Amino acid sequence: MIQTPYLLFLGDAPDQLAAKVAQGIRDWRPENAIGQFRMEGCKADMKLPDMTLAEARAAGAKTLVIGVANRGGVISPAWKKVLVQALEEGFDLASGLHNLLADEPDLVAVAAATGQALHDVRVPEVDYPIANGVKRSGKRCLAVGTDCSVGKMYTALAMDREMQARGMKSTFRATGQTGILITGDGVPLDAVVADFMAGAVEWLSPDNDPDHWDLIEGQGSLFHVSYSGVTMALIHGGQPDALILAHEPTRDHMRGLPGYTLPGLEDLRDMALTLARVANPACEVVAISVNTQHMSEDEAAAYLADVEARMGLPATDPFRFGAGKLVDALAAIG
Amino acid sequence: MIQTPYLLFLGDAPDQLAAKVAQGIRDWRPENAIGQFRMEGCKADMKLPDMTLAEARAAGAKTLVIGVANRGGVISPAWKKVLVQALEEGFDLASGLHNLLADEPDLVAVAAATGQALHDVRVPEVDYPIANGVKRSGKRCLAVGTDCSVGKMYTALAMDREMQARGMKSTFRATGQTGILITGDGVPLDAVVADFMAGAVEWLSPDNDPDHWDLIEGQGSLFHVSYSGVTMALIHGGQPDALILAHEPTRDHMRGLPGYTLPGLEDLRDMALTLARVANPACEVVAISVNTQHMSEDEAAAYLADVEARMGLPATDPFRFGAGKLVDALAAIG
Repeated sequence: MIQTPYLLFLGDAPDQLAAKVAQGIRDWRPENAIGQFRMEGCKADMKLPDMTLAEARAAGAKTLVIGVANRGGVISPAWKKVLVQALEEGFDLASGLHNLLADEPDLVAVAAATGQALHDVRVPEVDYPIANGVKRSGKRCLAVGTDCSVGKMYTALAMDREMQARGMKSTFRATGQTGILITGDGVPLDAVVADFMAGAVEWLSPDNDPDHWDLIEGQGSLFHVSYSGVTMALIHGGQPDALILAHEPTRDHMRGLPGYTLPGLEDLRDMALTLARVANPACEVVAISVNTQHMSEDEAAAYLADVEARMGLPATDPFRFGAGKLVDALAAIG
Repeated sequence: MIQTPYLLFLGDAPDQLAAKVAQGIRDWRPENAIGQFRMEGCKADMKLPDMTLAEARAAGAKTLVIGVANRGGVISPAWKKVLVQALEEGFDLASGLHNLLADEPDLVAVAAATGQALHDVRVPEVDYPIANGVKRSGKRCLAVGTDCSVGKMYTALAMDREMQARGMKSTFRATGQTGILITGDGVPLDAVVADFMAGAVEWLSPDNDPDHWDLIEGQGSLFHVSYSGVTMALIHGGQPDALILAHEPTRDHMRGLPGYTLPGLEDLRDMALTLARVANPACEVVAISVNTQHMSEDEAAAYLADVEARMGLPATDPFRFGAGKLVDALAAIG
């Protein structure tokens, strides 16, 4: 569990896209982001107050989050001075980079000396159990994609926000690095040892109130040969009551897999539902979330209308048109 | 890669079943088993020559394999003296126990001093890649089960033996602890980090001759919520050309999951084939392997005849009736 609120470290980000972890925190948990720390030459801007370490500490910030990714995911020497100083001034550090904080001897030494924590969110901090398949109370929703990186995390976060606004009980459950940094906790599922994947998802989404929804962050795709095992563990460990199908209509092949075409939404619906009903016979596919970023507004509206008619399910792009339809679909079965 | 041949350490095994790892080596790779080492009170017997460490070394044994499991998978103090002496006399040690050799300081110290290797086959020794999905040459067969522990490893080993006897090109590819100890190498798939599972299976089964079959050891079940992600990685990383359905007809629930009923063979066929064709559109379900150990011979024969008629596929129990039918089915599509 990472202590909030954060100071967002943008370093020397060459552009806004390099700071997408910071952007995710800013967009989805603005209350966790007290300010930003930018070095000379930084081209990213979260429209947050620029703060020194001391100013951010005085304002209550507890953790300096590395909100920027370098090429290769390394911790640059240029950042080191700031990171060391942050530890000395009482910050914990949190990072989702491939290059672990724990593999940097100087940071480890200063953290030990100052008693501050180093959080590498790529590394599981818990010994997860083997899944037991026992039915849990409360309700769960999982987005499953025709491919990786089609907007499953965004869909869950947008639904969570909408549900909070409506006074519904919901919790976003992070399963990836960005999601964990946004919310401060979760399971880095792609780094969990195979035997414990489904158990980690059970652990992440425990018994809850009958009218509470966990919105479990999806990963991978049942049809993506590199990561399908992770998706499977989410479906069986998550015991979802509701599945949302997630799709990006303009791809000509699976992400990173030239020659692999995307499945149809019907294929995804049938496969995911059959598998989900092994763990939860009451599971239903309730709606479709479409990432229309590469379509004009007219194209998007026409595509969504067509999908709704074809699939007999509500369909929307939660980024473009809001998550209302998706939450309505959950409420209808809740 | 574990050096062969082995001396099989049976320790103080309370019965034959406790030495099932040794039994697997004895049954499937007798050429790897030069002799057995039994301590006082040992109730297991592999019908191999009883040898002292010195006798086994003189006969060419290179590795002492712990072929017995204690309650709790621990390395008992009673064994320690033998294990230390074995290292001193020039043996490597290999173990599939939960209690790792590498976690025993005395063994680590002696291994370092003598230059001998400690092989914990529960721990991956390779940095596996992320799966790339690229089609590989050669052919692959995978057994998929309606449940865990229905005879998938046995099926692959029996087919391998039959194919060797027929002069066909085949290799058994181990993915679990017992399989790795039997053959001396493989991938401990249940211990691999989630993101690399499918890549580990690709690594295990590389390009090969067009008429060569890899017989990949199956794990878990698509319908077993604790381990289904591992099975998925085998299907997508393995790119099987042929699937064998494996089943044990007398179970009343999934192993370790009270309340979860087993799927039908039709359910398994449809689910596994649809998923396998994502990675290999030419994949076929070719035969059914039934574990009939809890049926009389008449019951077994009647059940197999019924399954053949119902499923339109050859069905046999390779332990009881030989793997000939299964290999015929492979040869028919090879």
